[in-house]
Amino acid sequence: MDESPPLSPPSPTSPTERPPIAYDLLLSRRSIRRYEDRLVPDELVTRLLEAAMAAPSASNEQPWHFVVISRRELLDELSERHPYAGMLREAPLCIVPCGDLDLVPEGVSGEYWVQDVAAATQNLLLAATALGLGTVWCGVHPRPERVDMVREVLGIPSRIVPLCLVPVGYPAEQKPPRTQFDPARVHRDGW
Amino acid sequence: MDESPPLSPPSPTSPTERPPIAYDLLLSRRSIRRYEDRLVPDELVTRLLEAAMAAPSASNEQPWHFVVISRRELLDELSERHPYAGMLREAPLCIVPCGDLDLVPEGVSGEYWVQDVAAATQNLLLAATALGLGTVWCGVHPRPERVDMVREVLGIPSRIVPLCLVPVGYPAEQKPPRTQFDPARVHRDGW
Repeated sequence: MDESPPLSPPSPTSPTERPPIAYDLLLSRRSIRRYEDRLVPDELVTRLLEAAMAAPSASNEQPWHFVVISRRELLDELSERHPYAGMLREAPLCIVPCGDLDLVPEGVSGEYWVQDVAAATQNLLLAATALGLGTVWCGVHPRPERVDMVREVLGIPSRIVPLCLVPVGYPAEQKPPRTQFDPARVHRDGW
Repeated sequence: MDESPPLSPPSPTSPTERPPIAYDLLLSRRSIRRYEDRLVPDELVTRLLEAAMAAPSASNEQPWHFVVISRRELLDELSERHPYAGMLREAPLCIVPCGDLDLVPEGVSGEYWVQDVAAATQNLLLAATALGLGTVWCGVHPRPERVDMVREVLGIPSRIVPLCLVPVGYPAEQKPPRTQFDPARVHRDGW
């Protein structure tokens, strides 16, 4: 691995530090709920999923699937039946990250899939920001009525758990980068 | 919000698309388990936490805390008592993202904290990559014996749940960027 080429041009401060634009991506991702009337090209969908599947996972189990929805009647049905996904009536695309209970161990270690798929979802949101797209994370699991509804609309089997809905589109609203850093949430060398 | 300035210089393809280096960050984050014998400056620790606290959360509850550990005896004790965190004997720093059960609703909606803190953790790992640092995600919650152990070592109260341990240091190993994209995990307009 050591002979791999550097990932970015060297900076004055460190041979491996990346330009500020890479760090700034993390503050630039905002929840975008209004979209232009414009389709998202398939090539960008693939890049979103490549980023999602670059996330870490417990024991590298990669316990994820992604349902990509562009059929208008499915988007409309989800928008009507999820209490906070009305923006899907306007969005040209929705991605549904799911966990696969057959890809994780039995017992408590199997529950890491939630964190794994959440990390993959966060990568998906950030990739969208990097590619000029907007997204918002609409919660599904662990609310059983939402899990059942999404399974029913999309024909998802019982061993597959939809984690959330991610509407995707070209942003029709802009929000500035921000952190919500709060020093009261930081503890040093113990609580 | 619409009058906010553009977040990055305009590109030829889209007024909001960011340079490739931003997207590439997502593929460049790898699990790094060997570190140089070199401290991480406090200023960078703050930037890691600013990125973590830029993550989305259910109803924007921000149900997180971060315990920052640099005391050698605490790092050593965690390295001995967590089955897969031996690299903490070498790491100069460990950050412990936690959920706060007093900051979330009662009942099933309270369980979204796991996804919220996982998204914040993924931001933390990506920020480290952007700043030339290496990290690895060592699972704690939901394994009760690991949660209890981390609470005991760090004096964490019972309503605070440590999600994971994140050793941080300057990388002493390099790994190339990669996705683990698998087209079999992608489903179109239903399962």
